[in-house]
Amino acid sequence: MASLSAGPQIERLIQLLAKLPGLGPRSARRAALALLKKRDVLLEPLSAAMRDAAAAIKTCETCGNLDTVTPCSICRDVRRDTHVLCVVEDVADLWALERAAVFRGKYHVLGGALSALDGVTPDRLNVAPLIERVKAGVDEVILAMNATVEGQTTAHYLVDTLSSSGVKVTRLAHGVPVGGELDYLDEGTLSAAFKARRSL
Amino acid sequence: MASLSAGPQIERLIQLLAKLPGLGPRSARRAALALLKKRDVLLEPLSAAMRDAAAAIKTCETCGNLDTVTPCSICRDVRRDTHVLCVVEDVADLWALERAAVFRGKYHVLGGALSALDGVTPDRLNVAPLIERVKAGVDEVILAMNATVEGQTTAHYLVDTLSSSGVKVTRLAHGVPVGGELDYLDEGTLSAAFKARRSL
Repeated sequence: MASLSAGPQIERLIQLLAKLPGLGPRSARRAALALLKKRDVLLEPLSAAMRDAAAAIKTCETCGNLDTVTPCSICRDVRRDTHVLCVVEDVADLWALERAAVFRGKYHVLGGALSALDGVTPDRLNVAPLIERVKAGVDEVILAMNATVEGQTTAHYLVDTLSSSGVKVTRLAHGVPVGGELDYLDEGTLSAAFKARRSL
Repeated sequence: MASLSAGPQIERLIQLLAKLPGLGPRSARRAALALLKKRDVLLEPLSAAMRDAAAAIKTCETCGNLDTVTPCSICRDVRRDTHVLCVVEDVADLWALERAAVFRGKYHVLGGALSALDGVTPDRLNVAPLIERVKAGVDEVILAMNATVEGQTTAHYLVDTLSSSGVKVTRLAHGVPVGGELDYLDEGTLSAAFKARRSL
């Protein structure tokens, strides 16, 4: 990116905005301009919201979720089933499952997936606390990893690691996404959907 | 967006991030998570950069550019030709032309384009100061509006408004973008490129 001759403050702002997922150099410039044009209604409130969030949000010491309290409000919720643990890669996945409101047990956030390429080994994930929680009395562990190579590698690793504990381990079903058209699906998904077909 | 049960601070952060151009609700959630995961290297520096930029950046009283000084560094630059003015809709357009390094005169930022739909009338644009600058001694006004309905409406309006001053008014050429394939271009662009064809 060429210098803008508009002062180092703007360049620094653009550089940092470009580090956000979803923003490239061009959209970071647009975002920086939008911020500077709307100082009162966007820049000042966003800067304050970032400071507030940084001060208030903690990582849950039990499950790895982000919340204003630790243990988080999900871990504290007595109406949720403590005997079923849903293991996810990331807090974003936990949020997605909560939005779908399909699960009423507790979560465990790994903080990533195994990846030889990125040097993510089991000790860099939140695995040891998971084993402790399982030992403390869990009936079922649902592996809700992404259906990627890294996610599935992580799931296989967890199945191995948890096998000695005797806990029931399940994974999410693979198949045709609801609303999906067969014509647009990859072979892997179609193959999985065929293998897991159900009688009506 | 369903509640995340992760505290109002995160929801507020996501809401404000979603107001940035280029970020929707989903990417705003991802951006908020990235900020909270990288507090030291991303959230704190970005928050500081926003405050620094808000404090340092001013709108140039001459041309409407954003800079740490007013008049801006382009208006102050004595090596630039004061007799040619390039009129742009937005500071982003000025930045784009500066990156291309094709123009060595001065700029004038309108702050938008005429739009009946959005209620943008000539008095809401930076037009009166443009006329003053032209009267003060300008040989050529280059209209570098976007090739949109609003941009071309604005260009027509400026041609009318400036006609009495006797200044030479030009506009950017329309045609095939460099690197563009004819197959992918719209009829308007192809028609403009044909009409403006040049002998070799």
